[in-house]
Amino acid sequence: MARWEPGARERIVLAALDLFTEQGYDGTTVAQIAERAGLTKSTFFRHFRDKRELLAAGQETLSRLLAEGIAEAAEGATPLAAVAAGLERASTEMGPINRELGPRISAAVAASTELQERAILKNVGLAAAMTDALAARGVPDPVAHLAAEMGVLAFKRGFAEWSEGSGAATDDLAPYTLAALHDLRAASASLG
Amino acid sequence: MARWEPGARERIVLAALDLFTEQGYDGTTVAQIAERAGLTKSTFFRHFRDKRELLAAGQETLSRLLAEGIAEAAEGATPLAAVAAGLERASTEMGPINRELGPRISAAVAASTELQERAILKNVGLAAAMTDALAARGVPDPVAHLAAEMGVLAFKRGFAEWSEGSGAATDDLAPYTLAALHDLRAASASLG
Repeated sequence: MARWEPGARERIVLAALDLFTEQGYDGTTVAQIAERAGLTKSTFFRHFRDKRELLAAGQETLSRLLAEGIAEAAEGATPLAAVAAGLERASTEMGPINRELGPRISAAVAASTELQERAILKNVGLAAAMTDALAARGVPDPVAHLAAEMGVLAFKRGFAEWSEGSGAATDDLAPYTLAALHDLRAASASLG
Repeated sequence: MARWEPGARERIVLAALDLFTEQGYDGTTVAQIAERAGLTKSTFFRHFRDKRELLAAGQETLSRLLAEGIAEAAEGATPLAAVAAGLERASTEMGPINRELGPRISAAVAASTELQERAILKNVGLAAAMTDALAARGVPDPVAHLAAEMGVLAFKRGFAEWSEGSGAATDDLAPYTLAALHDLRAASASLG
């Protein structure tokens, strides 16, 4: 298997994350990101409309994949089984680049209040996409909302464990997110 | 000692909510809020450091009340029973002013992306406060997180029903938030 070679888009994301970590999101300009990536500003703007769009880049795709997986789950699947199908669909699309970006994203988020707020809003966006997909399957309101919240938690936890783990672990994200969902399901039984 | 101005704080909040609804959060200045409330700018600044603090005003109190209720729940209470104690503690502090503000807050939030984002961050702050209070009782991590999420959902749903309801309903918020938590608990049993 060929070593992963970052293209322009990936270099922009990596440069931005490093700069956000070093000097915060607010203190970083598009010009600085382009320079760090060894690209021109106009190359930056061919890939991203602005600095903010760079943050939203992954969210739309992830929302779509989670919702697709839920929609395509077997007829009669329980709400959590449908969520598991969504996690599996999204997880199988995540590759080495996502795994490598994970700890860098965490570092950048830890260094910036603005990025922390963005991360929260992103999670809520993912939960909304999953709630809608479950509602479209006929899952009633509070159940759909709860199942979607558990799905976001499971994705976050599974992704963190996967991307922070050593190279010895599997390259596949799905076992991590599905195990996290399983743990949350067990947790729901001890709520009282 | 400065002369106490009865209702100044409430007049500022009401004026701000009306202006946010009419012209958005970003488009509203402190000067406009003070003018609409019939007060000077310096009176505004005696009550709130800035426009943003006005939004955070209720959150700190609410977080504290929810956490206190959870901390004071009976020894051996289940995680959801502790959450119920938190909801009860916070709900009993809500009076006619909170009920009247409810629909105005909803209208202002509906009119502003910035306020929608603030509302989401506020909910996450409440969930974090409840998660910490549950963890302090020895509730393990995924269970505490899940119970706290259900607590926030229950408070939001109960509050909305209470504040949008007719005057014929009870003045007491607690039955609404506790009923919403009961519904969510029932929902958790049908996750599959």
